[in-house]
Amino acid sequence: MTMQLFDLCGADPQIRFSPYCWRAKMAIRHKGLTFETVPWRFTEKDRISDSGQGRVPVLIDGDRIVSDSWAIAEYLDETYPDRPLMKDEAAKASARFLQAWSNGVLFAPIRPIAVLPVYDLLGDPDRGYFRESREKMLGQKLEEHSSRDAVEAAYGDLAKTLRSLDAVLSDHAYLGGAEPYWGDYIVFGTLYWPYAVKADHKLPEGTPTAAWFDRLLALYDGYAGSAPRAA
Amino acid sequence: MTMQLFDLCGADPQIRFSPYCWRAKMAIRHKGLTFETVPWRFTEKDRISDSGQGRVPVLIDGDRIVSDSWAIAEYLDETYPDRPLMKDEAAKASARFLQAWSNGVLFAPIRPIAVLPVYDLLGDPDRGYFRESREKMLGQKLEEHSSRDAVEAAYGDLAKTLRSLDAVLSDHAYLGGAEPYWGDYIVFGTLYWPYAVKADHKLPEGTPTAAWFDRLLALYDGYAGSAPRAA
Repeated sequence: MTMQLFDLCGADPQIRFSPYCWRAKMAIRHKGLTFETVPWRFTEKDRISDSGQGRVPVLIDGDRIVSDSWAIAEYLDETYPDRPLMKDEAAKASARFLQAWSNGVLFAPIRPIAVLPVYDLLGDPDRGYFRESREKMLGQKLEEHSSRDAVEAAYGDLAKTLRSLDAVLSDHAYLGGAEPYWGDYIVFGTLYWPYAVKADHKLPEGTPTAAWFDRLLALYDGYAGSAPRAA
Repeated sequence: MTMQLFDLCGADPQIRFSPYCWRAKMAIRHKGLTFETVPWRFTEKDRISDSGQGRVPVLIDGDRIVSDSWAIAEYLDETYPDRPLMKDEAAKASARFLQAWSNGVLFAPIRPIAVLPVYDLLGDPDRGYFRESREKMLGQKLEEHSSRDAVEAAYGDLAKTLRSLDAVLSDHAYLGGAEPYWGDYIVFGTLYWPYAVKADHKLPEGTPTAAWFDRLLALYDGYAGSAPRAA
């Protein structure tokens, strides 16, 4: 049976914006494996209850159910060793750093940019769920967190934060060097989030990171680049 | 002739605190090469003028003169390929990210902790040089930048910043995985700076990063751990 990935969507099931799901989807494409995505909404916890938790991505591969994008990458490397996502322990360690940096540092300026546009893409009852859970986490209203001033400041912070990537990508095609690896997909998924939900979102023009993002969009027959996003 | 490394020192020539020199020294020890350090002070630009610039580390290896810690690491790998600091392009890319992150992010909370203690370790005329150049760069007096409040806040920021390292080092002995690589020495050199100059400096106790720092101090017969530092 074809591998299935439960993938977060908005009111329109075509719009897929979860950074963690994009990490997982790029990992499966990296492996050259066939799979289908299953559109899933925030409040459909029952549909993924077999995974023992309530978030996507969830990968169904035969009788195996794997949740959490990092666990999915490790599962793929163990089960399908060709074209490794992490070729050795050194790659695992460096991807781990990129994950911690993405989740702890890079998300900070991206969140104000993406949070309100995500809300706008949702239908009911997801809107109520998203507003309540995110406002509790953020300690402020979505409209405050993504105010015009906050978004402007966030773009300034984002440009600064991306300099660490620019330093690598001015000398190398990918964070993995000559070839993309799991670390590339971790950062790409993170940056895909605002790209998917905000029609006028742009990375700083002319930077090595913007050129790298375009390269990732083009990989695997333009898989990520041709996916529908917010109009 | 034995390889020589010009190495920044304070009024006491035994006290060596430059983060960039520590990166280079650990790299030479990693290679198992014999070398001697030459104590050098900020204002002794004439003594390293053959390098075409005014900062250390400067490595003299026969008729080769190499400055800049990254260039030294690349030179060592090209000239002495055994025990590579960066075993492939992937390692180079991941070390580059750690360098950009260390120089751009990790130094921010470390600077207030170290700047005034460094000044206190200097003699004349280095004190005048250091105060003038650093106050221009920082846009404030050394005493303001390293005020008690600023240092307290910096330790809070440092603990948060180190979480990206903790995420890796809770699963791996080194940033390079099972073995240290150039990326380890980049971060170690950065964190050695406050360790060398401030007697009561401590990394957050019980963290994977603190344990890793101790492992680096112990490497190569305790080379870094046995070096004299501020009393």
